[in-house]
Amino acid sequence: MKSVAKNNTLRNIKLLIEYEGTHYHGWQTQANDRTIQETIIKAIKRITAEKVTLYGAGRTDASVHAIGQVANFSTHSRLAPERIMHALNAYLPGDIVAKRADDVPLSFNAQRGVKAKTYTYTIINSKTPSALQRNFSYLIRGQALDINRMRKAARHLVGKHDFRAFTTHSNLKQNCVRTIYLVAISRHKDLIQIKVKGNGFLYKMVRVIVGTLVLVGQGKIKPVEVKKILDSRDRGRAGPTAPGRGLCLVELEY
Amino acid sequence: MKSVAKNNTLRNIKLLIEYEGTHYHGWQTQANDRTIQETIIKAIKRITAEKVTLYGAGRTDASVHAIGQVANFSTHSRLAPERIMHALNAYLPGDIVAKRADDVPLSFNAQRGVKAKTYTYTIINSKTPSALQRNFSYLIRGQALDINRMRKAARHLVGKHDFRAFTTHSNLKQNCVRTIYLVAISRHKDLIQIKVKGNGFLYKMVRVIVGTLVLVGQGKIKPVEVKKILDSRDRGRAGPTAPGRGLCLVELEY
Repeated sequence: MKSVAKNNTLRNIKLLIEYEGTHYHGWQTQANDRTIQETIIKAIKRITAEKVTLYGAGRTDASVHAIGQVANFSTHSRLAPERIMHALNAYLPGDIVAKRADDVPLSFNAQRGVKAKTYTYTIINSKTPSALQRNFSYLIRGQALDINRMRKAARHLVGKHDFRAFTTHSNLKQNCVRTIYLVAISRHKDLIQIKVKGNGFLYKMVRVIVGTLVLVGQGKIKPVEVKKILDSRDRGRAGPTAPGRGLCLVELEY
Repeated sequence: MKSVAKNNTLRNIKLLIEYEGTHYHGWQTQANDRTIQETIIKAIKRITAEKVTLYGAGRTDASVHAIGQVANFSTHSRLAPERIMHALNAYLPGDIVAKRADDVPLSFNAQRGVKAKTYTYTIINSKTPSALQRNFSYLIRGQALDINRMRKAARHLVGKHDFRAFTTHSNLKQNCVRTIYLVAISRHKDLIQIKVKGNGFLYKMVRVIVGTLVLVGQGKIKPVEVKKILDSRDRGRAGPTAPGRGLCLVELEY
């Protein structure tokens, strides 16, 4: 029997994954906490009887969601990709769903060769919380945020910059240069959505950007201040880290 | 002290309420189950020390949501309406939110004088479930629903009709004539939304309408069949009752 398994061709399966991060301690497997990665690895084991390594493109934090997470794993299973997808969804809890499964070249690794990542961040700007959006948004009470000021500020972030001021836990050796292609801010009634697309993001970078843009929208700092914060490379000058629940990993491009 | 309470003027407070129905057995208080109505009554009691009667405009079923439920209660409390709203939100669980509170004439009753009710029903039409929408939608797998056929069928429902075929638990004496003002069907990728506005709805009527329109969209019955079902006044001829989780009470007009 062992020789049969060895004779099977090794395949590389790429998954497109949607999840609600509310009840998980983020993507990455940790010693004592329930994570997305670990939950998917367990489901794969039930299908393939293999303990796989699952590479995820975006290491989302606790409470952060995804509609377009990409991951891959190697397997000797002979199941068609679509069968793998449906079998995974049969074993996964309802808050994690495999949306696609594809055979890809063995050279593909979800963590490498990412050309663009897109995130959205959702703010509810209202006197009262939202019952339906409570796990998917950040509540900003009080005055209406000034979207035009936020858009002005956001323009300073677009382009290739050293984003050290907009990350936590950076060290001196780390290369903090990233390119932001787009920051789009839209409002529909009480709901504000900030879409950010870049070639990569530092740890908690989108959430620090959002926390800083909120200060601009509240009139607490001027739009041009965002350029000064960027130039300072000083995390202490940027705004607070907005909560994870408002963030969603939308798309990965290779 | 008792005389002070008696001297207070009786007020009528109108509430605008948003809730996620997932973890409740519907709006209406029941002997052994957790309901929206009972949960709000308990929160009011903590603020006013009164056991109030809470009249709700839409008696939503288990798992059904609302962003525009209207309810009212009488109180001797002297708190400003906005204070009542914030105090309620402090005591209510996160899946029920008071969005507004207003003083209204004592003659106002949320259950009476409703001119129009609007509901939306959300369908996910995809090979795979949605992790983020799982509590807010009905999954229709397989082929793409034909929206144009569904729109054709929906036209037969608009207007003043006897909707006996589209309700459960009706009795012979009940007046089943209602007027539907609008059935609007839209599609954005995998997400189909059916908006229905009428002067009132029979028990589970929106969900039976949706279940029937899905049969049309799947090509199982012809659009004109919906007219025949309506004319038959026979519940047995309409489609299945779509699940509650896809339904949301959006707006009440008085």
